[in-house]
Amino acid sequence: MAPLPPRVPAGSAMTGNPHNMRTSPFYSHLAQSIGPVNIVTPAGQIGIRVDGSIPTDPVEQITQALANLGRCLEAAGASVADILKVTYYIVGFDHTNPQHRGPLLDFLGGHRPPSTLVPVPKLALPGIIFEIEATAAIPQLPSEKVDVLVVGAGLSGLQAAVDMQKAGLSVKVLEARDRVGGKTWSRPAHGSICDVGAAWINDTNQSKMFALAKRYNLDLIEQNTKGKIIVDEGVGKLKTHPYGQLVSEEDDKAAIADIVRVRDIFEETCQQVDISNPVTSGSAIREDLDNITFEQWVRSQDCCEDAVNALKIGTRAMLGVEPSEMSALYFLDYCKSGGGYMQMRSDCKDGGQYLRIAQGTQSFSTCLAGELAPDSLVLLSPVRQIVQKGGSLSVVSARGTYEASRVVMSVPTTLYKEINFEPPLPAEKIALAESTKLGDYCKMIVFYRKPWWREHDLCGLSQSCHGPFAVTRDSSVDEDAHFSLTCFVTGQPARDWMVLRPADRQKAVLDQISRLFGPFAKVEEPVEVVEQIWRNEQWSQGCPCPVMGPGGLTKFEHVLRAPTGRIHFVGTETAFEWKGYMEGAVRSGERGAQEVLLAMNKAKL
Amino acid sequence: MAPLPPRVPAGSAMTGNPHNMRTSPFYSHLAQSIGPVNIVTPAGQIGIRVDGSIPTDPVEQITQALANLGRCLEAAGASVADILKVTYYIVGFDHTNPQHRGPLLDFLGGHRPPSTLVPVPKLALPGIIFEIEATAAIPQLPSEKVDVLVVGAGLSGLQAAVDMQKAGLSVKVLEARDRVGGKTWSRPAHGSICDVGAAWINDTNQSKMFALAKRYNLDLIEQNTKGKIIVDEGVGKLKTHPYGQLVSEEDDKAAIADIVRVRDIFEETCQQVDISNPVTSGSAIREDLDNITFEQWVRSQDCCEDAVNALKIGTRAMLGVEPSEMSALYFLDYCKSGGGYMQMRSDCKDGGQYLRIAQGTQSFSTCLAGELAPDSLVLLSPVRQIVQKGGSLSVVSARGTYEASRVVMSVPTTLYKEINFEPPLPAEKIALAESTKLGDYCKMIVFYRKPWWREHDLCGLSQSCHGPFAVTRDSSVDEDAHFSLTCFVTGQPARDWMVLRPADRQKAVLDQISRLFGPFAKVEEPVEVVEQIWRNEQWSQGCPCPVMGPGGLTKFEHVLRAPTGRIHFVGTETAFEWKGYMEGAVRSGERGAQEVLLAMNKAKL
Repeated sequence: MAPLPPRVPAGSAMTGNPHNMRTSPFYSHLAQSIGPVNIVTPAGQIGIRVDGSIPTDPVEQITQALANLGRCLEAAGASVADILKVTYYIVGFDHTNPQHRGPLLDFLGGHRPPSTLVPVPKLALPGIIFEIEATAAIPQLPSEKVDVLVVGAGLSGLQAAVDMQKAGLSVKVLEARDRVGGKTWSRPAHGSICDVGAAWINDTNQSKMFALAKRYNLDLIEQNTKGKIIVDEGVGKLKTHPYGQLVSEEDDKAAIADIVRVRDIFEETCQQVDISNPVTSGSAIREDLDNITFEQWVRSQDCCEDAVNALKIGTRAMLGVEPSEMSALYFLDYCKSGGGYMQMRSDCKDGGQYLRIAQGTQSFSTCLAGELAPDSLVLLSPVRQIVQKGGSLSVVSARGTYEASRVVMSVPTTLYKEINFEPPLPAEKIALAESTKLGDYCKMIVFYRKPWWREHDLCGLSQSCHGPFAVTRDSSVDEDAHFSLTCFVTGQPARDWMVLRPADRQKAVLDQISRLFGPFAKVEEPVEVVEQIWRNEQWSQGCPCPVMGPGGLTKFEHVLRAPTGRIHFVGTETAFEWKGYMEGAVRSGERGAQEVLLAMNKAKL
Repeated sequence: MAPLPPRVPAGSAMTGNPHNMRTSPFYSHLAQSIGPVNIVTPAGQIGIRVDGSIPTDPVEQITQALANLGRCLEAAGASVADILKVTYYIVGFDHTNPQHRGPLLDFLGGHRPPSTLVPVPKLALPGIIFEIEATAAIPQLPSEKVDVLVVGAGLSGLQAAVDMQKAGLSVKVLEARDRVGGKTWSRPAHGSICDVGAAWINDTNQSKMFALAKRYNLDLIEQNTKGKIIVDEGVGKLKTHPYGQLVSEEDDKAAIADIVRVRDIFEETCQQVDISNPVTSGSAIREDLDNITFEQWVRSQDCCEDAVNALKIGTRAMLGVEPSEMSALYFLDYCKSGGGYMQMRSDCKDGGQYLRIAQGTQSFSTCLAGELAPDSLVLLSPVRQIVQKGGSLSVVSARGTYEASRVVMSVPTTLYKEINFEPPLPAEKIALAESTKLGDYCKMIVFYRKPWWREHDLCGLSQSCHGPFAVTRDSSVDEDAHFSLTCFVTGQPARDWMVLRPADRQKAVLDQISRLFGPFAKVEEPVEVVEQIWRNEQWSQGCPCPVMGPGGLTKFEHVLRAPTGRIHFVGTETAFEWKGYMEGAVRSGERGAQEVLLAMNKAKL
């Protein structure tokens, strides 16, 4: 079994009450910071949503304000336990009905910071009935000097850190989140674990992940492909067919044939890509393919709309983007990095979605973190500034300042902007970071009492271009009596779906499940629903992998992995093999460690 | 050309916004302090003026409140960039007309701290519609140990620091302001520079300043004395006469003769003062002259009111005080320090107002600061505490704590109270500090398209005992096409004038210019007006030089320059020659450095 994740740093705000004073279960009379701290002061937070709308229901509005405060604290690297003091401003306050209390206690968990409640006649905007101010104090660790500072404790950063420590270097890993794992995130649900991020490996061409699974003694679950899949690809009606087969009927014969034709051309073109140098693949310069979007490429094959839809489900499910948002060559190279389009999309042996992990894929991250020397890892410590000066780097994070000879950046290109580099990153690196785009990728994991789909000879896989989700898969862990369908809400449908209220989001997904599965099975009532919207994650901002638009590979492929002085860059997007997958992340981490070791003349050759 | 002033320290308040949250151009969602800081918490500031009045115009009231907050920050050594968080309380807030925004954005410059806006039914006083609360965090520099700590980067402190560094000592200079120069302050205006503080040197008996002007290659401008001066000394009517001559007419013959008689007695008495020991000047103990005010001395000469007025213009223009507020001996000694009353008041060769500096007199300070070793100077760092213990001193400032063998205090006696000494300064030093008084000294510099007064054979000098200003002088820099009259609003008239609204202050000065110059020239419309009120300066509190009342010299002359343990005292008031002038400041700095070097056995004898 995987070790527990590293402990989140204790808050610095020590709370208490003076002796013999009237106390309250809702707040402490006193908090004080202990030791050196950085002070965090969010703006007063109101219950406004990112789209500017304001919930009319008071409790919903208060909950939104608290969520906004939580986002501010998260962006600062502070936790709720770091809050020193809160002040609430409440319009129309009625002490006999303190509506803020429920959401507040949910938000605070066990922490009870001192508070002031100020009834006010109104607030800054009409309709706002609640505003919360907070001051937090982040404990500061003593400054340290290390050989290498790793930014980010996802798989790539952890793998790099473990390799470098094994080679004798002193390494510190700073992680912005309160957990390790980045986009591997296994959340407890319904007495089991569900993977809201990366979920699959295989045991053949993903040699690194399989080796880690063996090393950490993780239990592998073969992805369920027994039974039929449901297809709703715009060919007019819902169909089922056995996994891995395209069965055509009289009325869709032409469409299916066209889908197969275009898919085969794509696969053939894909196989010609040289992943070590995609723009110059062999002798052919493929700028022609880089200068058009994948949608343009598909349409240039003179195909029917059904073929376009079929491939659209592919880009949505694989990268969370529309075919119109991505360079054709980028997608070809991405697929080839996993052995080709068919293999990367496959749920069978050798495929991208072959094996799941009973303990959850975050176990890879927690186990790697467990291999680090004690105190190598600092959570809740977003890096703010990296100063290169002479032979060393100064790294300023929310919880301390470090001096290092080298830095390994294991954050996605799209997040470089969150760090202030001095001197600034080279213009090409900045242009790269500004040009890549993360997909909109959400999962809604729907738990059931039993795997009712299997009883009707369905494997749980569905593909759809109508409704919020593009794909469902069986994500059960039978031995935990965990039976679930994971619905992938991605690309443009995700953007429309994310702005709905939570209850409406859930209803839309459940409705689509009923519509797809209902004709073929008795759909049961869910017992639990877990939702994950990667776009809203402060420290991911999307999922699974930054995507390049037209011209991106031509301009930036050589920039992607290039070190900047003493700063090295890893992350699944920089991998040659299995980009966007855990395998790619781990391989990039190994490459980053090798770069650093070579540069520091410590490589064990 | 003078080097640029040293950079103001960066604020520690790092602001930002969480990803994917609705943002505002008026505030950030988040600030956090980075590194060790001191916390600054001003009281909620309202738009009340020093006289207790409250502007009725909302924008004017808000602007006053922000100015008050600015004063608080300044007194703490904090800058606007150090603000972590603000809260506004607004009476009658109308979200469709946020009147606070304009003044606020002016106040904040480019900084965008998080904010909370709280509409309230009323505030602590009737008529108050706006209150602002702020929290600031001042970054703390690492502690350092130096040979000498200099408090204040005016001319005296900088000269002392440069001399001591040249002799091999390690020196740190702490300056409370965001600039060097103290009362040398050259502000950009109308495409040129204007000196709102010290403005003149000469090239004969001010040998130190002339040498510095040569060393720094500064361009000298001879004060304009070509043409007539305007006299409005209470003799009933406005008159002009050539610079340096007193022309009497039939109706003022007696008055002029009396003025000349008293002036000559004063000059003669003045010349008898021994500046190295004014109380015992030669064999005569002059306690008689120290125990009366200068006004009492003048009236004891049995003179007419016009002679009193003429000398009143002198004390106002020279020291910003009334003749009734100063010991007669103090004024005699002060004048003698500049070679006598006539020479000190003179705008001609050998006189106190002979040469101006095209680049502004602050160039002396920036150039001296430029001679210091790197990192010798910390701006925005008022000293809070000086602890003498054993063989060393601990100096606590707003931006860090220092250990030093010696301290050189280059602040005026009147400002000693701003520092907490441990052990306290000797009783005599405290009594000295409590007994000296800084003058009320303001400048209003009025810019014109051309020097219209010269066209009418006027040199620009006027002397008046009716209206806000006592004196005007031509302060043009012709080569910059900068043509200005500087009006000296000083003494009691300054106290009455300072409490006016800004527009009324300007009108009063322009009206007086019209009244004085109108009969002799066509007065033009100004193109720009620069105002400086030294009383309002946190780190000057008046200008040019602390003045002693009756009995002061007798009691404190021997205390003025006496070191207290390892603390040495410099500043223009401690000079023997050219008290109140830049020359005196520089000479006192040299004397202070010599004292320290002798004490530390490092003097190059």
